[in-house]
Amino acid sequence: MTRLLVASRNAKKLGELRRILDAEGLGGIEVVGLGDVPEFPEAPETGATFEENALAKARDAAAATGLPSVADDSGLAVDALNGMPGVLSARWSGGHGDDQANLDLVLAQLSDTPDERRGAAFVCAAALVVPDGEELVVRGEWRGVLLREERGSNGFGYDPIFVPEGETRTSAELDPSEKDALSHRGRALRALLPQLRSLVR
Amino acid sequence: MTRLLVASRNAKKLGELRRILDAEGLGGIEVVGLGDVPEFPEAPETGATFEENALAKARDAAAATGLPSVADDSGLAVDALNGMPGVLSARWSGGHGDDQANLDLVLAQLSDTPDERRGAAFVCAAALVVPDGEELVVRGEWRGVLLREERGSNGFGYDPIFVPEGETRTSAELDPSEKDALSHRGRALRALLPQLRSLVR
Repeated sequence: MTRLLVASRNAKKLGELRRILDAEGLGGIEVVGLGDVPEFPEAPETGATFEENALAKARDAAAATGLPSVADDSGLAVDALNGMPGVLSARWSGGHGDDQANLDLVLAQLSDTPDERRGAAFVCAAALVVPDGEELVVRGEWRGVLLREERGSNGFGYDPIFVPEGETRTSAELDPSEKDALSHRGRALRALLPQLRSLVR
Repeated sequence: MTRLLVASRNAKKLGELRRILDAEGLGGIEVVGLGDVPEFPEAPETGATFEENALAKARDAAAATGLPSVADDSGLAVDALNGMPGVLSARWSGGHGDDQANLDLVLAQLSDTPDERRGAAFVCAAALVVPDGEELVVRGEWRGVLLREERGSNGFGYDPIFVPEGETRTSAELDPSEKDALSHRGRALRALLPQLRSLVR
C-alpha cells in the first residue's frame, strides 16, 4: 500500500488534515503522521510566505523519510493588519503555539477597528513533495470577519473569533465536517487530490 | 503674534515637534501645546492611515480652539510585518503607550526573521488645519533596519532598535538635532514650513 506522510506536529491540525484526506476516500493510500516515522531535523519556519514554509516542510519530510509528503502552512490574514499575523500566526504574541495569547493580542490590536474594517481570511498553502518526483504547492483561502469576543469550542487557533462569509456562526461553532467543506485547509488539500490519487496509479 | 497649536498629548513627541519648529525659526509664530488651551473632546485614532489620523486630530484641535493647528500621526512600518505596526504602533501590544511592551513584541515577532528581511521605515503624516482655511497633509519617511536588541536612550518608541540608512547608530543613539535633521517627523514638518510661514504674512 502506498504510504503518504502528513508532516505536522500540531495534533489538532494533523487531525484536521487526516480527516479531510480520509473524507476523500484515498483508497490505496495509507496516511501516516510524523509519530509513525523516525525523527528527522526540521528547518525553522522562516519563510516570508505560506507557500515557502509549506514547501520547505514537505521537502524536509520527503528527503528524510523517502515518502511522498504533504505539509501545510496556514494562518490568519487580517485586513486591518495588512495581512498579518500571516506566516507569524502561531507566534504572533511572541512565543510559539499559545493560541489564547495570539487570539487575545489580535482582539486587543483590533479593539478600535470598526466593524466595516474587520475583514480577514484564513489562508492555507499545502505542498506535496514526491521523492525524486514532482513538487506542488496550492493555496486555499476562506474569507470572513472577526468578532470582538470568542464563540465556540471546536477547531483551534483563531477559529473562535472568525465568522466565515455566508455564516452567522464562528468556525469554532461549525461541526468538523462543515468546517472541512468550507475551510482554507479543506480547499487547499482538495486541490492536491488529483496528484495524490496519481500516486497509486 | 500668530499662535500655532501643536496638538499632541505625548510629551516626548510634543517636545520633538516644538524643537523641530523652533529650529526653523518661525519668527512671528508662537507655538503652543494642548496644555496651553482649554480641554476639548478628541476623537479616537481609528483611521486606517497615518494621514487620516493626523488630519482628524488637527481638525478637532482647530475646530475647538480656533487656532491654526498641526498634528502628526506616526509609527513604524516593518517590512516583514507588511508595514505594521503602522497606525497601531503606539498600541501594538494591546494597551496604549507602553513603549517597552510594544518594542519587545516587535523583537519577538521578528526573532526568526533573517537580517536581509529586517528593513523598516519610520513614517510620519503631519497635518495643518487653518480654521476656515486650508487643510494640508504631508508625509515623511525614514528608512532603516531593525536590530535584535535595544541600543541608546534618546528618543522614544521604537528608536532603540532602529538603525537609519547610512548610520551605524540607532535613532536612540543620535543627538536630538541629528535625529531631527534626518527623521520622518523632521521631514514631514519641514514640508509644512511654506504654509506655516504664510500664516504670518
